[in-house]
Amino acid sequence: MKKENHNYAVILAGGMGSRFWPLSRSLEPKQFLSIFGPNSLFHETISRIKTTIRPENIFIITNQLYFPEIFNYTSIFKIPRSNIIFEPEGKNTAASIAVANRLINLIDSEAKVLVLPSDHLIKNNKGFRSLLRYVFSEAPVKNNLVVFGIAPNYAAQGYGYIKIQNAKFTLKGTGKMQNYNIYRVEKFVEKPDVGRANRFFKDKRYFWNSGMFFGSVRVFLDKIKENLPATYRLISQVYESGDIKAIWKDIKSISFDYGVLEKTKDILMIPVLNLGWSDLGTWSSLDKVLPKDKSANTIKADAIVSESKNITVLGKDRLIACLGLENLIIVDTPDALLIARKDRSEEVKKVVERLKKDNRQEVQTHRTVKRPWGSFTVLDKGLGFKIKVVEVLPKKALSLQKHSRRSEHWVVVEGKAKITKGRKVFYINVNESTFIPQNSTHRLENPTDCLLRIVEVQSGHYLEEDDITRIKDDFERNRQGDIGKLAK
Amino acid sequence: MKKENHNYAVILAGGMGSRFWPLSRSLEPKQFLSIFGPNSLFHETISRIKTTIRPENIFIITNQLYFPEIFNYTSIFKIPRSNIIFEPEGKNTAASIAVANRLINLIDSEAKVLVLPSDHLIKNNKGFRSLLRYVFSEAPVKNNLVVFGIAPNYAAQGYGYIKIQNAKFTLKGTGKMQNYNIYRVEKFVEKPDVGRANRFFKDKRYFWNSGMFFGSVRVFLDKIKENLPATYRLISQVYESGDIKAIWKDIKSISFDYGVLEKTKDILMIPVLNLGWSDLGTWSSLDKVLPKDKSANTIKADAIVSESKNITVLGKDRLIACLGLENLIIVDTPDALLIARKDRSEEVKKVVERLKKDNRQEVQTHRTVKRPWGSFTVLDKGLGFKIKVVEVLPKKALSLQKHSRRSEHWVVVEGKAKITKGRKVFYINVNESTFIPQNSTHRLENPTDCLLRIVEVQSGHYLEEDDITRIKDDFERNRQGDIGKLAK
Repeated sequence: MKKENHNYAVILAGGMGSRFWPLSRSLEPKQFLSIFGPNSLFHETISRIKTTIRPENIFIITNQLYFPEIFNYTSIFKIPRSNIIFEPEGKNTAASIAVANRLINLIDSEAKVLVLPSDHLIKNNKGFRSLLRYVFSEAPVKNNLVVFGIAPNYAAQGYGYIKIQNAKFTLKGTGKMQNYNIYRVEKFVEKPDVGRANRFFKDKRYFWNSGMFFGSVRVFLDKIKENLPATYRLISQVYESGDIKAIWKDIKSISFDYGVLEKTKDILMIPVLNLGWSDLGTWSSLDKVLPKDKSANTIKADAIVSESKNITVLGKDRLIACLGLENLIIVDTPDALLIARKDRSEEVKKVVERLKKDNRQEVQTHRTVKRPWGSFTVLDKGLGFKIKVVEVLPKKALSLQKHSRRSEHWVVVEGKAKITKGRKVFYINVNESTFIPQNSTHRLENPTDCLLRIVEVQSGHYLEEDDITRIKDDFERNRQGDIGKLAK
Repeated sequence: MKKENHNYAVILAGGMGSRFWPLSRSLEPKQFLSIFGPNSLFHETISRIKTTIRPENIFIITNQLYFPEIFNYTSIFKIPRSNIIFEPEGKNTAASIAVANRLINLIDSEAKVLVLPSDHLIKNNKGFRSLLRYVFSEAPVKNNLVVFGIAPNYAAQGYGYIKIQNAKFTLKGTGKMQNYNIYRVEKFVEKPDVGRANRFFKDKRYFWNSGMFFGSVRVFLDKIKENLPATYRLISQVYESGDIKAIWKDIKSISFDYGVLEKTKDILMIPVLNLGWSDLGTWSSLDKVLPKDKSANTIKADAIVSESKNITVLGKDRLIACLGLENLIIVDTPDALLIARKDRSEEVKKVVERLKKDNRQEVQTHRTVKRPWGSFTVLDKGLGFKIKVVEVLPKKALSLQKHSRRSEHWVVVEGKAKITKGRKVFYINVNESTFIPQNSTHRLENPTDCLLRIVEVQSGHYLEEDDITRIKDDFERNRQGDIGKLAK
């Protein structure tokens, strides 16, 4: 029992996964998508480790933009909020892993740390849990960093590779779990071209680099100090000053692989078989993990597909008719549509860059915007008006707020609303409405155990989300600026 | 002036143009679409002839489903409503041409009649008007039917062809307009395969069949009587009984080309050059008439197009990202999306057939449904509620009506509304609202010269359009069943 308390995890959850646009948006990144079942990739990541690692020992490093989602998950999994590290901006994995290990070291200098991406797919949860037990309990790790190599099942070009040294350097598993091997790494190899990918696939010494890392907190910090001394020094200052914002901007943006692993000797690799793993790096990666029909099509949409093969269609709200198509990925969302040749799906990233440059809304949020209390969807807008459907989760409340430049009509279409308007508090039911004049202090609450849904018609000459003064907020969004600050 | 009064036109406007789905819908067919400018194809068709043919002499044969659109155009162009013939169902062009000529013959037995489709594109309006002047005033037509042959500018497979007899049979133009020729037709040829299309393109005796016909009303009726005697007899009964519905079901569904022209000798053809004509038969026909960029793409959408060529993208409301595409047509509408290989665009018809069989809404109406008083758009619906934006044109009114199974909240977001609710009549302005209880008699009117826009939130367990009792209606929709009846 004592021993188990040294098991820690660091979940990397700061990325956007822009190659999954238009399903992923900068404010609703890939790790929070539920493409493969009812739960998001992030949810599944935590689920997989929670039998081996206690919630208090799970640390999450993410972007402060994602606090509503993250707070939601930490309350589901009972992870302390103080275990969340909000980065002021993305600085790639070396910085994230450094800052998280530095914090864990303050708590437990004997910690064994597993670093995990939060946006990968692992279908074989049982196999993964068995691997975790081995790693934390029996693997002859000592003072080494450990990586996990996926045995390739095709000649992938989309992954980096790990080459192991000859098998004579194999360290045999000890204890009960003799079925795991552990090898010394010879080198890391960048994403290969077709020819090399084919060669790697035939050569049993090559494995896919899964992006998961394991080691003692001491080893993580030593290797960072050795290879990225400036990063190590700055990270230490974060904990001395308690002000992550002032320091973070000077930290080098570099991956842990490139900045630390590739410069480190004596790295070990545990090969893992049949995990059903994918990094979901591009839309075409879905081809390896989603089921296909007899024309090699994957259709998760209201679609009519005729004379088409090897197409993937993801949609929900609209009818999609496909006629004579081949090798395409089609992703339909209420405000943006992607149609791309599968072998170019890597380039979605470029499209996203361009949208960002153009400051397009479609790269930031979906038409339905999630909030800690529920969500809203802009149905229509025009000169002087905006129509929203607002959904409030059971027992949740929006902030007590006012708008200086707009008034609002609310009509309840589902559930029952508790309304605060100035000094009055009252309830309205389905088919009843109320009017919130400009500058009137108001609050919308769902006092019931069922969903509350209202239609909001806004009127005014300025109808943006920033016309809001929050007087009280259950989600402390008035203090959003503080969230990046680490508890000392 | 006297002579001009014998100039008549019959506009064929009963088809749906299903190969233009999802832009065309059965309740909003191709002829009412505005793809090539601010006006619909139907509007342009009337515009082109109105300098030569008086509004009283323009007859329209259409489906009674289209009465709101048609009434709108007849009031724009001052065409008498009694000139509209509503077919109970589509029976192809022979029946339409027969019934229209029978009606014209009752009015003017010396009529010269031009029969025109309403869903074709003609870019060169000046050239077409000059042609009309020639046809109605100088062409040596006598007792012949005349067709119009388009000089091919590529080896089209999508058109039927007309082959003329040797040039020695040319009848020279008379009068001032010597630049027109008129030939005797040798035969009509069905849509050819590639090889024949190439041959026809090189052979100067082949022309595209434009689907426009000219002749005296007497010749039209004689030829129909001769070749389709049963149709002729039934059409005559329509005018004797005045009840088109009872008779129409027995009329043979056949095209005028197949049923009459191909069996008739001594047909003349006037060749027309540089009309910029297209029958807009399929989506791929747009390639010949819409401008292309340097990658041969036609983009009329909010689109990001990368590494793509020869694609056509039509959209409006959503961002469309295209990556590495070739030879595709992409048509995006709020409720339905089509992605088709261009050379298969003929098969859109099959998709539409399947949607009809499945009784899909997306084949009948757009999300925005036009009404004689304006339009409505369903923004969202769920269990027990429906949210609409209703637009009422200046000075127009909805019917005085009531709903037995729903109540409605109205919020004005643009303009000013006159409301009748029970015995009360009052006005509401932007940012004001009213509630229409179930079973309450009510009417929404726009008393102003500007657009009125309201948000309507419906509540109830049954929210379909057929829950309506019309007490008074400016558009006589209570008597919709009578519209198919011809004035005797």
